[in-house]
Amino acid sequence: MPETRSFLSVDEAQAPFFVGIDLGGTNIKVGLVDDLGRTLSWLSIPTVVEKGAEHAAHRMGEAVHQAIREAGLKPDDIAGVGLGSPGGMDIPSGMLTTVINLTGWDNFPICDRVSHHCGMPVTFENDANAAAYGEYWVGSGRDFQSMVLLTLGTGVGCGIIIGDLVVQGAHSHGGEAGHIIIDFDEDARMCGCGQRGHLEAYASATAVVQRAHEILDAGRPSSLSRRIAEGTELTPKLIADEAEAGDALSVEIIADTARYIGIGAVNMMHTIDPDAVLLGGAMTFGGEDSELGRRFLAQVRDVVLRLARPIPAQKTVIDFAILGGDAGYIGAAGVARLEYRKQVRP
Amino acid sequence: MPETRSFLSVDEAQAPFFVGIDLGGTNIKVGLVDDLGRTLSWLSIPTVVEKGAEHAAHRMGEAVHQAIREAGLKPDDIAGVGLGSPGGMDIPSGMLTTVINLTGWDNFPICDRVSHHCGMPVTFENDANAAAYGEYWVGSGRDFQSMVLLTLGTGVGCGIIIGDLVVQGAHSHGGEAGHIIIDFDEDARMCGCGQRGHLEAYASATAVVQRAHEILDAGRPSSLSRRIAEGTELTPKLIADEAEAGDALSVEIIADTARYIGIGAVNMMHTIDPDAVLLGGAMTFGGEDSELGRRFLAQVRDVVLRLARPIPAQKTVIDFAILGGDAGYIGAAGVARLEYRKQVRP
Repeated sequence: MPETRSFLSVDEAQAPFFVGIDLGGTNIKVGLVDDLGRTLSWLSIPTVVEKGAEHAAHRMGEAVHQAIREAGLKPDDIAGVGLGSPGGMDIPSGMLTTVINLTGWDNFPICDRVSHHCGMPVTFENDANAAAYGEYWVGSGRDFQSMVLLTLGTGVGCGIIIGDLVVQGAHSHGGEAGHIIIDFDEDARMCGCGQRGHLEAYASATAVVQRAHEILDAGRPSSLSRRIAEGTELTPKLIADEAEAGDALSVEIIADTARYIGIGAVNMMHTIDPDAVLLGGAMTFGGEDSELGRRFLAQVRDVVLRLARPIPAQKTVIDFAILGGDAGYIGAAGVARLEYRKQVRP
Repeated sequence: MPETRSFLSVDEAQAPFFVGIDLGGTNIKVGLVDDLGRTLSWLSIPTVVEKGAEHAAHRMGEAVHQAIREAGLKPDDIAGVGLGSPGGMDIPSGMLTTVINLTGWDNFPICDRVSHHCGMPVTFENDANAAAYGEYWVGSGRDFQSMVLLTLGTGVGCGIIIGDLVVQGAHSHGGEAGHIIIDFDEDARMCGCGQRGHLEAYASATAVVQRAHEILDAGRPSSLSRRIAEGTELTPKLIADEAEAGDALSVEIIADTARYIGIGAVNMMHTIDPDAVLLGGAMTFGGEDSELGRRFLAQVRDVVLRLARPIPAQKTVIDFAILGGDAGYIGAAGVARLEYRKQVRP
């Protein structure tokens, strides 16, 4: 947790400095990083969606200045601020359009307003793209020229980086790989967006829970049923726990999820052909630190080996992301840095 | 047909000049274009695969010089040569690796050898990427900042352009969208590559013919059966003819094909989010010039409108490519021009 980490001191840091803001539906994370993406200060404030966008923009401006003070710096030391936000959005105009997780914030010029409140230029980016750029800059993508980050959580987020190009798309819909069609059948699973057969309809936490419920409802025996009867909520975490305890159904659900993620990875490989496809987000079944997580990763790699074209199958790195919840603000700071470098070194 | 076109004269042309080579399994097209992508001379020579790669490289070198002479220019007037080739290939090293349509040409350093024989620097590119760049430079993509070209023929080719970036991929497998998985079912259609459920297994000419045969074999009545009994080969062209004559099955096969192409377009839109997805190649059912082709395009657009996220669905241009068989050499010349501009204006 960033709260307990020791941050880089300003004496060890390398100018210029950037502030990244990671706007979420519950919390807003603000971090100040140096030119190498190392964090000097970090704070989290509640989003309080219902108080509205202008209120939050004002508090984001304050949080930026608090982060600057806590790092022992002055506003003039900051070369740029980056803001990563959930969509829908229009990136070039810095507007939120219709934001599912930020009810009532529609059509708000968030980039301009945050810039106004912090008194600095703000670079706007989709949150999934920002997280991908964070991993590319200083995370598990740091050795690659191109990468795709799949963020496995409530939905399936995606960010695509090629060189220093963040693939925002012509209509701010670049890297919406949660919504690629992997099963065109008319009875394919329904996605949260209202369409069928999307990657997210199979591989998100929401979908994993739904799939598990359906199999349990069909009468398949599993220790999950006992845990649910005891009052435990059915979540990917519970499925991971029961899989570790040897429950066959839980093991199978995780393997099926790995298959869907692998199919998503293959489709990215056959479109972008990146150096690496990285898996981040909350639903990595323990990730690199657990045997279950490592087995999940091995299963995804196996699907890729079986289904991708031979050369990318052999050469593309499939791995976990490493920045966790920090990827968003670090990447937002990183895109501000990209923008700054374009201006000072055009 | 290029043979009967009148070409631009050297007096009207704008220097510098570039030669593009479009290497195919049957013919090699060589064209000389000016800085605006306008053709000054053009010729086609047989590939003669069985004589080997070195023999062909030698003749490509000769053809380049013939194109220069026919345009009324000298070798010194040429700023670069581009070569588009079918894959597998390794683009950075200019090597053919395992080329399905060029038997026996494996592991041949084609870029170096053509460069040797024509005495000029050669820029190497995948043929589908080159065709996409041709459409982007001077074809129906010329007004866009980003585009995807789907080339519908024996297979489904794909080239992705974002700004002046041709998405070659980290392993020369960028834009292999014919091999994205659109149906993950275990009984999904088999692709020519040996995997199941790929776009190409549904939407290529090969797949269209196969789907038609299967439906006819199942006993569905259609005027196609009569035509086949008369000795006509079942091809997309025959299906187009019979659809125009009112055959219900032929109409249905084309509509199904439009659905698959639309699904492929949606997946590109949810990954790259380009300004435009363009459809080229031989299997456009008559294309812009025929009512059937225009209906096919309308059907693809309808699928995109129904299945894509609302904003890209409304804003992404879905249209036919316009350069036809010229896209390859023009695009190859275009990537040579990109390379030249990088060097003279870094």
